Amino acid sequence: MVSMPPSREIHLAARPQGAPQPTDFALVETEVPEPAEGQVLIRNAFVSVDPYMRGRMNDTKSAAWSRASYVPPFELGEVMTGAAVGQIVTSRNDGFEEGAWVVHHLGWRELALSNGKGLVLFDAASGSVSTSLGVLGMPGLTAYVGLLDVGRVEAGETVFVSGAAGAVGSAVGQIAKLKGCRVIGSAGSAAKVAWLREIGFDEAFDYHDVVAGEALSDGIDVYFDNVGGPMLEAALAALRVRGRVVACGAISQYNATEWPAGPGNLFLVVTKRLRMEGFIVSDHGGRLPAFLAEVGPWVRDGAVRYRETVVEGIEHAPAALIGLLAGENIGKMLVRVGPGNT
Amino acid sequence: MVSMPPSREIHLAARPQGAPQPTDFALVETEVPEPAEGQVLIRNAFVSVDPYMRGRMNDTKSAAWSRASYVPPFELGEVMTGAAVGQIVTSRNDGFEEGAWVVHHLGWRELALSNGKGLVLFDAASGSVSTSLGVLGMPGLTAYVGLLDVGRVEAGETVFVSGAAGAVGSAVGQIAKLKGCRVIGSAGSAAKVAWLREIGFDEAFDYHDVVAGEALSDGIDVYFDNVGGPMLEAALAALRVRGRVVACGAISQYNATEWPAGPGNLFLVVTKRLRMEGFIVSDHGGRLPAFLAEVGPWVRDGAVRYRETVVEGIEHAPAALIGLLAGENIGKMLVRVGPGNT
Repeated sequence: MVSMPPSREIHLAARPQGAPQPTDFALVETEVPEPAEGQVLIRNAFVSVDPYMRGRMNDTKSAAWSRASYVPPFELGEVMTGAAVGQIVTSRNDGFEEGAWVVHHLGWRELALSNGKGLVLFDAASGSVSTSLGVLGMPGLTAYVGLLDVGRVEAGETVFVSGAAGAVGSAVGQIAKLKGCRVIGSAGSAAKVAWLREIGFDEAFDYHDVVAGEALSDGIDVYFDNVGGPMLEAALAALRVRGRVVACGAISQYNATEWPAGPGNLFLVVTKRLRMEGFIVSDHGGRLPAFLAEVGPWVRDGAVRYRETVVEGIEHAPAALIGLLAGENIGKMLVRVGPGNT
Repeated sequence: MVSMPPSREIHLAARPQGAPQPTDFALVETEVPEPAEGQVLIRNAFVSVDPYMRGRMNDTKSAAWSRASYVPPFELGEVMTGAAVGQIVTSRNDGFEEGAWVVHHLGWRELALSNGKGLVLFDAASGSVSTSLGVLGMPGLTAYVGLLDVGRVEAGETVFVSGAAGAVGSAVGQIAKLKGCRVIGSAGSAAKVAWLREIGFDEAFDYHDVVAGEALSDGIDVYFDNVGGPMLEAALAALRVRGRVVACGAISQYNATEWPAGPGNLFLVVTKRLRMEGFIVSDHGGRLPAFLAEVGPWVRDGAVRYRETVVEGIEHAPAALIGLLAGENIGKMLVRVGPGNT
């Protein structure tokens, strides 16, 4: 048994109005007890910072647009839960060996006690354990399911993805390319756009500098929407007959304090026979094996590339989320909270 | 050969700004020549007045929301084309006998010459030829395809339809009931609401008097949208997880001169995994036999009921369209321009 220092964790201290502030979070130090029979102690390597976490900070009743069955809100005074990956340092559960790497949903803490439920083993031979939270984890699966199952892309089609330099968007673009599509991406900085071109996007533009409607003027067949807002309106205008909108996220609106107006051209859904369909990756866990079987090798041989923006130290997780919502990341936003495998 | 008087027809005289005005139309008298070899002369009984015709009055370039591949705009100085039904009074085409009733798309005129292309025979034994433009015609097929193929309703689900007292909406509600659904309808007057209750809607409300969100507070599975605007927003809020929006029309916006803002809660498409899908009935002509086989008997035996609002005389067709857009019809809006079969 390894002797462990106290664990530091991040709690939700207050529900943000608009953009989260550092004071909406609290850094708390706790003593983690020795695992009881059936439990394992996990020392986290990385905790995940994902756009959907912003919605969970709202009181669902007051935040009408996040109402309904997504994920329940964080509780005030409780840990910011979410995906994380760590190594089992003590096991009193026969299902998990000490030394194994596991992905879990216990969130923003250095040490986590688990009864084993919901732990998913990660094969550390497949690369950095950080990828279990990104290109080979929930964001990668989101891209895969959204593109193939929801968007039903076909070779020869043009796919436009917004938030293209994020963990989901960059996977969307590269998987679409490997499926024979033409790919256009939008992102929020010159550096992001340069990276998109480097990883094979046919076209990429900075939405600050380029009018989306002009960048999309040749038409698109599928819009993978990570941002919502005016970009959705531009995409609706650009979609061809029988085009699809894969409704994945709306990061441009997550800090909104009022319902933002929707796209004024939604009637194009009728005239162009469009299909707009939302999905949540957690409904599609059954697709994980197919995803790993197909995309895993692409990642290992470099056909699908990824980047990570890594913030050091659990105490900086709030800043990482605030930064993510402001578009400061390229690729997957992570917080390193302990030793990894590489 | 029957000797015919001059034919009166309605031309588009000007493109409306906002609601159409009588001056946007012109009544024109023309001499119709004798049919040439291969042609037939049709004496119309009824011409159809349909919501989609408003969009065709716009110059597609200036009316951004009607842009894209719907139906081409009417030409200035030309006949308002669209569905009509009439009897063949002279035939020089072996495919059509004199006395036969045919549905065609030659529009708002008393007499029509046709080379036979696009003419569809209507069995006058199945009821008034007027039904070929309503419950047994395009509006009925729209309801059938939208509900079954696009919405994929299942027995036990709750279906909400707006514009429920119109030709499409009233068919939607009754077909949904016959498929084992619970049905809620909205309409714009007490008389319409009373009729909806009479034909078997489980609930019906006048949207002027009732807050839609309250009327729908038990939740819905499918929203058949004929009106767009605030009703779409209320329906998005009321839809259950994996609900569907059958995007058929947006009559509340057809007279708009600017793009109206879309629903502010469109992000619910993601959180509730909704599917919103548009369709245009003309893409689904192949379903006409199945529709007539299933719905035809229902109409004949009274299981599906219908009403018609009939305006007399081709010269009043413009007023009929203006009235339709203001919600003055109950059921199918028609203009009687000649003798029918009943």
